[in-house]
Amino acid sequence: MPFKLIMLRHGQSTWNKENLFTGWVDVPLSEWGKTEAEDAGRRLAQSGHLPDVVYTSLLRRAINTANAALDAANRHWIPVTRTWRLNERHYGDLQGKNKAEAAQDFGDNQVKLWRRSYDTRPPPMRDEAYAAQQADAQYGSIGEQTPRTECLEDVLARMLPFWESDIVPELRRGNTVLVVAHGNSLRSLVKVLDERTDDEIVNEEIPTGVPILYELDDMLKPIVKGGKVLDL
Amino acid sequence: MPFKLIMLRHGQSTWNKENLFTGWVDVPLSEWGKTEAEDAGRRLAQSGHLPDVVYTSLLRRAINTANAALDAANRHWIPVTRTWRLNERHYGDLQGKNKAEAAQDFGDNQVKLWRRSYDTRPPPMRDEAYAAQQADAQYGSIGEQTPRTECLEDVLARMLPFWESDIVPELRRGNTVLVVAHGNSLRSLVKVLDERTDDEIVNEEIPTGVPILYELDDMLKPIVKGGKVLDL
Repeated sequence: MPFKLIMLRHGQSTWNKENLFTGWVDVPLSEWGKTEAEDAGRRLAQSGHLPDVVYTSLLRRAINTANAALDAANRHWIPVTRTWRLNERHYGDLQGKNKAEAAQDFGDNQVKLWRRSYDTRPPPMRDEAYAAQQADAQYGSIGEQTPRTECLEDVLARMLPFWESDIVPELRRGNTVLVVAHGNSLRSLVKVLDERTDDEIVNEEIPTGVPILYELDDMLKPIVKGGKVLDL
Repeated sequence: MPFKLIMLRHGQSTWNKENLFTGWVDVPLSEWGKTEAEDAGRRLAQSGHLPDVVYTSLLRRAINTANAALDAANRHWIPVTRTWRLNERHYGDLQGKNKAEAAQDFGDNQVKLWRRSYDTRPPPMRDEAYAAQQADAQYGSIGEQTPRTECLEDVLARMLPFWESDIVPELRRGNTVLVVAHGNSLRSLVKVLDERTDDEIVNEEIPTGVPILYELDDMLKPIVKGGKVLDL
């Protein structure tokens, strides 16, 4: 029996819709995003791959995607663990800025580099915004580790310890694990599993609201690279 | 600093609306029930008593009440634990039956006794329904302990070990604990805290969708019996 991991990227948020850099800003799902989440649950139910445990980030768009999907799949009652280590990439001082305006201010190439390079961080959060983030109870337990900005490499570095300490043991127990998270936290997980290069992974697009099943062998390597989309 | 426990009874379900015995049947919230849940979250936020951890039953109406209330209170990200020990009382063979029809079939007094006596159990679930309940993954981990029917005394007996093993330690750590559950599981908790007699507790009505704050002293006794409703 292969180990079963299911990834689910949250549905559309209100800021995705408005083309703003979101990162750690805790915006809600749009109405379409909620529908995507419910559809994802129906896909899980129909596929017969039902999660035994679920992991999410601390961000509302992932949490509510998980809640709606699990309710639709009749798995609302499974144990859930939420961690900042699955949060979206921290976008630093770009958070809250319009992507088109950022391109005007900093140039297309610079913005593309921030969005698509593996190891280039956006400008860090300003002191005031950073102080507010640290004072937020939501991130109170993280303390010193709270990032001011992150590149994809940073995301991988903070995601991986949690993968090893919490998710891998659940998989090895034989549980089907659902991870509901974000474009970049899932990308970093895909990089590890599929052994993608830095250049490859930055161009990987993970679809929103669609569960992707990874069946893993004893070495936790995918039996099929890229996994399998659970279609309706 | 007193310890802080907040109880929240789930909002109206579709079966409450239709006057059916629900018990462990996993029915959804009605639209009104969802509104109640969001209002409960606004009450929490306005009161300033924000939970650090949340406990729910395994039933969708409590889970979704917790999800909606916490989202409205901006506490969607706190750790959650779900347990069958906070489930509604198991109503045995009455589950799914209309309360008025049950009164016709068994007599008013008998139905009143099942609903309002401390130690009289309704007729047990029939074999087929019980087998289905035991086969359900939702209750797979309970095994032999899965009830066929329960009186309020039984609910207290299965709730209390969880209170002691899980909830009390969280309170003693100084965390504000939210318990989102059901008429009878909360009634049994009130019985313990307020030291109510068997006769008193069966007539206690806990309002739906309204957070009730219990401030507890070092002996975990309420500073004010009955707690305090967190009004808007």
